[in-house]
Amino acid sequence: MWRAAVCVLLLLCMNTQVTGAADKAEGTGITLAPPSFSGKLLVIPMDGSHWVAIKALAQAMGRRGHKVTVVIPEVNIRMGPGKHYDTVTFPVPYDKASLNIIGTNKHLMEKSSESFIQDMRKRFAHMQRIADFLHTTAESLLFNATLISHLAEQVSGFDAVLTDPMVPTGTLMARKLGLPSINLLRGIPCLMDMKAAGCPSPPSYVPRFFTGFTDKMNFMERTINTLVSTYCYVWMGFSYSYRYVILCLNRYDFTMEVPRPLMPNIILVGGINCNVRNPLPEDLESWVSGEHGFVVFTLGSMVSDMPVKRASVFLEAFRQIPQKVIWRYTGQIPDSVPDNVRIMEWVPQNDLLAHPGARAFITHGGSHGLFEGLCHAVPMVMVPLTADQPDNAQKMASKGVGVVLDIMSITTEGLLQGLNAIINDTRYKERVQKLSAVHKDRPIDPLQLSVYWTEFVMRHKGAQHLRAAVLELNWIQYFCLDVIALLATVLLVFVILTVKCFKVCLRKLGRKRKQE
Amino acid sequence: MWRAAVCVLLLLCMNTQVTGAADKAEGTGITLAPPSFSGKLLVIPMDGSHWVAIKALAQAMGRRGHKVTVVIPEVNIRMGPGKHYDTVTFPVPYDKASLNIIGTNKHLMEKSSESFIQDMRKRFAHMQRIADFLHTTAESLLFNATLISHLAEQVSGFDAVLTDPMVPTGTLMARKLGLPSINLLRGIPCLMDMKAAGCPSPPSYVPRFFTGFTDKMNFMERTINTLVSTYCYVWMGFSYSYRYVILCLNRYDFTMEVPRPLMPNIILVGGINCNVRNPLPEDLESWVSGEHGFVVFTLGSMVSDMPVKRASVFLEAFRQIPQKVIWRYTGQIPDSVPDNVRIMEWVPQNDLLAHPGARAFITHGGSHGLFEGLCHAVPMVMVPLTADQPDNAQKMASKGVGVVLDIMSITTEGLLQGLNAIINDTRYKERVQKLSAVHKDRPIDPLQLSVYWTEFVMRHKGAQHLRAAVLELNWIQYFCLDVIALLATVLLVFVILTVKCFKVCLRKLGRKRKQE
Repeated sequence: MWRAAVCVLLLLCMNTQVTGAADKAEGTGITLAPPSFSGKLLVIPMDGSHWVAIKALAQAMGRRGHKVTVVIPEVNIRMGPGKHYDTVTFPVPYDKASLNIIGTNKHLMEKSSESFIQDMRKRFAHMQRIADFLHTTAESLLFNATLISHLAEQVSGFDAVLTDPMVPTGTLMARKLGLPSINLLRGIPCLMDMKAAGCPSPPSYVPRFFTGFTDKMNFMERTINTLVSTYCYVWMGFSYSYRYVILCLNRYDFTMEVPRPLMPNIILVGGINCNVRNPLPEDLESWVSGEHGFVVFTLGSMVSDMPVKRASVFLEAFRQIPQKVIWRYTGQIPDSVPDNVRIMEWVPQNDLLAHPGARAFITHGGSHGLFEGLCHAVPMVMVPLTADQPDNAQKMASKGVGVVLDIMSITTEGLLQGLNAIINDTRYKERVQKLSAVHKDRPIDPLQLSVYWTEFVMRHKGAQHLRAAVLELNWIQYFCLDVIALLATVLLVFVILTVKCFKVCLRKLGRKRKQE
Repeated sequence: MWRAAVCVLLLLCMNTQVTGAADKAEGTGITLAPPSFSGKLLVIPMDGSHWVAIKALAQAMGRRGHKVTVVIPEVNIRMGPGKHYDTVTFPVPYDKASLNIIGTNKHLMEKSSESFIQDMRKRFAHMQRIADFLHTTAESLLFNATLISHLAEQVSGFDAVLTDPMVPTGTLMARKLGLPSINLLRGIPCLMDMKAAGCPSPPSYVPRFFTGFTDKMNFMERTINTLVSTYCYVWMGFSYSYRYVILCLNRYDFTMEVPRPLMPNIILVGGINCNVRNPLPEDLESWVSGEHGFVVFTLGSMVSDMPVKRASVFLEAFRQIPQKVIWRYTGQIPDSVPDNVRIMEWVPQNDLLAHPGARAFITHGGSHGLFEGLCHAVPMVMVPLTADQPDNAQKMASKGVGVVLDIMSITTEGLLQGLNAIINDTRYKERVQKLSAVHKDRPIDPLQLSVYWTEFVMRHKGAQHLRAAVLELNWIQYFCLDVIALLATVLLVFVILTVKCFKVCLRKLGRKRKQE
């Protein structure tokens, strides 16, 4: 069961990618008052795109004078040292090559020529590999006695643990070390994070992951959503419990997601990485300048490659637009790359999108990328690949700020049409500008807010006043089933007695009449 | 039904009193960035203590350069002009004397010598008078064609309506004028405000008003809470609908209230008036100085009087403590007032509580007063009189920051004991300091937050992205009763068919056996 759950998680965890916009960023303009104390924060991050937001927060905390220690596996995809935090590494029994195999997502771009059964078997084997990998990584940390005791020695110094709860390693560590834990997350399938916080998610208007529904559902959609929700409730109820969490920094925002009830310890920090910015490198700055502006094209760091035939579809479309195109791509380069296309192994995605010349953003619909596009008001062509990407893309498309294309059946004409629409039909730009204005109109920047609440937990050794009593109730108490049973019994007894009395009276009355 | 509802509302509305701490305040330190626009705000306030927070926000908005117009009845209890807003008055068919009769709450301090029936009849008559008064006030505004058309002429200029939804006059006006409305409120009985926002309030851990329960309820308490909640649901469902509201600024805080789910358009601004401060008048400043500090004693502006006999109980206790006492009191002064007691017709309550010499606060437990006591970390003796005051007092007492005494049976000894406990037992001070530190530890001051979100609604002509889809659902859809009916039918048909099939098979099998 655990492995099956992890497989689903993994789909999300390994595939919501960005191009590492925050990796190099140092110039965040934190404007909170200087902290009144200098604390110690232990960070247990997740790899892949999950690293982006955690790193931004770790850096920000370090810049504010806290001692930040980040614990990462020796072999990893993209995690690494930073200017404002220390890293502690732990050995893992796999090498970079096997990591690359796990990280490959090329199958998402290719139609399978195999039979359905074979294809499914292959996919399942891949998910199994990922689950094993995660399991191994977690074990390597949790059973590393030397590291644990090293950290435990410092425990009196640590004030809190910051972690991504996609895999509960960090939460378990926090529990072991007796420290309050802060989660920074995008959301866990089956709304498990919401369930863990005791947050009601009525299936009548809160759509479940992977359904692609909005908050306005028709009867059939509501039925499916209710079934999914019931399935989740039963299944996840057995497999997980995250009730130890003190505070959730949730990368969620009502301009992208549906308005829904939230618990007091869920702090919304959607768009946390938008203000983590650097100036563009000089050569790139001069290259993108031009009257027609430019298009940014990335499919996330995990899908930097694609079959040459599909790459040509994109290049042919780019050849026919006046905009320049910056494409993050590490695969085999087709023979004729048009002059207006620049292929790079890594792009400063957020800095490019923030550039006034950015006209369009071709993206796989990962949440980081969408938040960046939204933040800088760039209309989008979305080609979702997997995990939450189809859901994300659908949500943005429903707001009229972009178009969704299917990567499996994409054609040069289709792409050209999509690009022309979002670049030349001013309604897309107007809508994204309006949505962006609302998104950014918050009393405090989400990164600053994250810093604030992380420091809050460190200052007060928790956030007990935000912890709802629902977490102490079992589901019979929560739904008041015991109360309902009592009331129903009382009502039943009352009805039975009334009916009996009535019958007795009637009978007596009948007898009396007969006697008369 | 409407009148009955209003009566309950009135209990809250007329009795959650403070001594007008904010009335004179001009010195709020708003530190938000200057507004990017100059808008127009229409304010339709409620009288009594409800005026305090609305005035603070109206003043703050005016100070930021917005044109603020406050609409008030010609005859009122405490509403009036301010430096940073304009007032428009409308005539009402009652005079100050009849208002005073309605406002009197002396009966709350006196044991009735009449029979229970007579007493109840008298109380009901008083509530009826209040309901009539509110009704008349609302009619005087809503049917004042001249004023309405005057405001309607200016409508193109107004950006939003700020109102207290205790009585829906402001909401109706906003609707009539086609403007988005912002509610500033403490809460409406039966959690009507939460229901209006579509916010789930599970009775298993969200206590209802007037029950005195916390979020940790035993089985019997949960049963009562569920019954109250059901009663409210049925009763209030028929009488009110506030779904037009755009944004709620709710004077609620998790240091005082239970952590519970909230909808995105509910912004918590508990303690909004704590930073509305002025320096103490010089004579008061010098009078309160002294090594033993002083006690602040107010029962709210509506209960400034009490029977002489009861006043003597307080004075005798005050005579026996080394602290000075500042008492807001307008009634008949007993013969011998001790030297350490200063009786005043109005006191700058918040400024006094903010003074480092404040040792204790004797209060009726109105929410404004409690927030001020909490903000400035002053332990409290609470003598709740009516409405939400017993609930409020119980909540604060359960946090260990004060003691609750019964005004009807209060004795000099009891009061002395209570005062000595909270002044000399350092645990009270420590607990209130800790709670105060958590209460004040928010990324942004609640008054600034209120200003921010009011401007947000004005800037964007609403806050559509915070409006949950639940508001478009009827209760059958909300609880998915139609979906459950469908699924139950499908399940039933399946079970019946299975059983039938099984029976047919068994019968055939039986026949076959017989034939053998």
